[in-house]
Amino acid sequence: MPYYIGDVIKDYKKLVIRTPEEFKKTGVDVKLKTRVEAVDPGKGSVRLSDGTALPYDILVMATGAEATRLGLPGEDMEGVFFFRKLTDALQMKSFLDSKPCRKVVIIGAGYIGMEMCEAFRSLGIETTVIDILPRPVFRWDPEFAKVVLEELSKNQVTFLPSTKPLAIEKGKDYALRLVTDKGIMGADLILIGVGTKKGTELAVSLNLEMGESGAIKVDFSQRTSMENVYAVGDCCEVFHRVIGKWIYFPLGDVANKQGRTAGQNIGGAPSEFPGIVGAQAFKLFNLEVAATGLTEEEATKYGFQPVSTIIAGLPVGRPMAKGEKLGLKLIADKPTGKLLGAQAIAEKGAVSRINSLSLALWSGLTLEEIGYVDLAYAPPFGGAWDAIHIAAQTLMRKL
Amino acid sequence: MPYYIGDVIKDYKKLVIRTPEEFKKTGVDVKLKTRVEAVDPGKGSVRLSDGTALPYDILVMATGAEATRLGLPGEDMEGVFFFRKLTDALQMKSFLDSKPCRKVVIIGAGYIGMEMCEAFRSLGIETTVIDILPRPVFRWDPEFAKVVLEELSKNQVTFLPSTKPLAIEKGKDYALRLVTDKGIMGADLILIGVGTKKGTELAVSLNLEMGESGAIKVDFSQRTSMENVYAVGDCCEVFHRVIGKWIYFPLGDVANKQGRTAGQNIGGAPSEFPGIVGAQAFKLFNLEVAATGLTEEEATKYGFQPVSTIIAGLPVGRPMAKGEKLGLKLIADKPTGKLLGAQAIAEKGAVSRINSLSLALWSGLTLEEIGYVDLAYAPPFGGAWDAIHIAAQTLMRKL
Repeated sequence: MPYYIGDVIKDYKKLVIRTPEEFKKTGVDVKLKTRVEAVDPGKGSVRLSDGTALPYDILVMATGAEATRLGLPGEDMEGVFFFRKLTDALQMKSFLDSKPCRKVVIIGAGYIGMEMCEAFRSLGIETTVIDILPRPVFRWDPEFAKVVLEELSKNQVTFLPSTKPLAIEKGKDYALRLVTDKGIMGADLILIGVGTKKGTELAVSLNLEMGESGAIKVDFSQRTSMENVYAVGDCCEVFHRVIGKWIYFPLGDVANKQGRTAGQNIGGAPSEFPGIVGAQAFKLFNLEVAATGLTEEEATKYGFQPVSTIIAGLPVGRPMAKGEKLGLKLIADKPTGKLLGAQAIAEKGAVSRINSLSLALWSGLTLEEIGYVDLAYAPPFGGAWDAIHIAAQTLMRKL
Repeated sequence: MPYYIGDVIKDYKKLVIRTPEEFKKTGVDVKLKTRVEAVDPGKGSVRLSDGTALPYDILVMATGAEATRLGLPGEDMEGVFFFRKLTDALQMKSFLDSKPCRKVVIIGAGYIGMEMCEAFRSLGIETTVIDILPRPVFRWDPEFAKVVLEELSKNQVTFLPSTKPLAIEKGKDYALRLVTDKGIMGADLILIGVGTKKGTELAVSLNLEMGESGAIKVDFSQRTSMENVYAVGDCCEVFHRVIGKWIYFPLGDVANKQGRTAGQNIGGAPSEFPGIVGAQAFKLFNLEVAATGLTEEEATKYGFQPVSTIIAGLPVGRPMAKGEKLGLKLIADKPTGKLLGAQAIAEKGAVSRINSLSLALWSGLTLEEIGYVDLAYAPPFGGAWDAIHIAAQTLMRKL
């Protein structure tokens, strides 16, 4: 999603949403609430849910993904929300505006769950997050999850690990109650954020070739297996430069880049999207949490021999430090010495390090180079030896 | 210098300075207040100012640089300071502690001048900066200097451009007065920060080969032209990866890296310092000011054909922006499309962008790649299209 969903809840009046009429002025015909029922590639035509047919020269599949449903009894009750589209956020906003909400339970401690904690707490709502896994944001290592848990606790968010939701029922003290394998909890609002389901139904009906991941297979120009059909965003795969393979990685910035690449090719300016390295981040109250590249598990799965180190560095120069910490983990490939991935967490400076390291991954740099790479040094922004240098040199000793 | 000199003035009690006795415990004999009068490379021996001789197997030249003196009449009066060594900062601190200081004039609007503005203003001292050049921090473009001037003005620092200091005299209302070609100004303290003079006297007396820049010529292992003699830090050259030449670039982080490289080679672990790309930054009150690579003038001088663009981007995602701006300039080589340099200024996010772009320079990336490079996206830290992407795509249109 190309906007910050938690922010909509906090202040949705800032959003500027263009209407179909406004789009029309720019020569774009936007049909809302209209479903494509079928595509006839032979004729070059799509059949719409309003009964009409629309001819095309080029078809772009931007069918995205849906929020995963758990199939819980009571999942469709009033007060239960999934978060995927702008309208989901607006609906939640009017729900919160229309009735008092004292307590929220969030199912799923991924990005959406974590980001929404801040939104709910800023409204003074008691907030609990449950996850079926033993720690939040599982993509990060236990050392980082520990810091995430402290930040949640500091902000009065309760986290319940290894908890399986079983059913949602009408409640007594609260409007709803969530039944789990660990007990029952009341809530006025339940948010389910447990991942995405690829929107590939139409693509399947068209017999487009799918990749190993189950998303639509595309090339670097965003072309699918069918002539004149492109795919972009959360319905298709993307090339991961570190692995050297096409994978599924449904993030908003990637979707934007794929859209631009397809648009340029369709418009006659040949263009290739060079792929990703897996950079990602979220903000949790006062913490920056970021990662790039592969985890050790992923590295092993894709045939690398990962070695890793975690350091507690400083986001600023030593004489200026006032107790801030920067946790930085690097993962490298033992035989080649190449960086494979990184994780960082800090009150400030985590995203900055991860972005520099994403560029290092992009170019396939080794730890030896990263240990001496040139970063802008001034004590308010880091040490003469930055945490990046120190971590790379520390990990080099394990090669 | 490996610490933040302004910070010493604000809170120098935080500094931990090891004594020669403490060094001795780690097996290192540190002789302070001892000058090397001459080196006899044939014998492998240095003659010290205390009359003794010290034999060596390996000699490391770490003679640094001195603060440039202007040769002004009155330059040696009490209350006139140069800033280079830790002791300079401590001397200024005791001067400020011992007598009231109402007004400071800083000669030179480079890093030291800019960083010291904040230190003096935090002590409530009226501060004026003069420079012989028409704008402060001349390495940055006029558009950026304008923002620097606004920040100085917002913090009650007066900047006088194109002003030549002529003499320092005893004052009436203030302890000193500075005579310039634009008038006379009183001050209780005058700080002169107008650059550095390479400390190469000893190297010259040894007939070490000098580079074009006038600093000691070294190789990637920090070896000089003479066997068993290394040089590191502000007395020697460094390899600039963007230019592909050895230049003089006296910054603290570079000196640290050169020292480590020399130490590893001396200790028997062959090591090469891969050079720099020119990353640099300073903090000015609430501003981050950063740059990397070449300016347009430098690019032209070294045979490139620079094209450039400046954008006013956002350091955070659009729906979260509260008026923050991020000024970003990119410079690229027209025939190859390769990035040559960048400048950034912002309340936050400037150093982060410059570090990512330094990695791009390190690996010789083109604008085409930079326009799609993978950065960790979350609206608190940037847009789905980061300022880096937007600037690179904007500049691509000029290739």
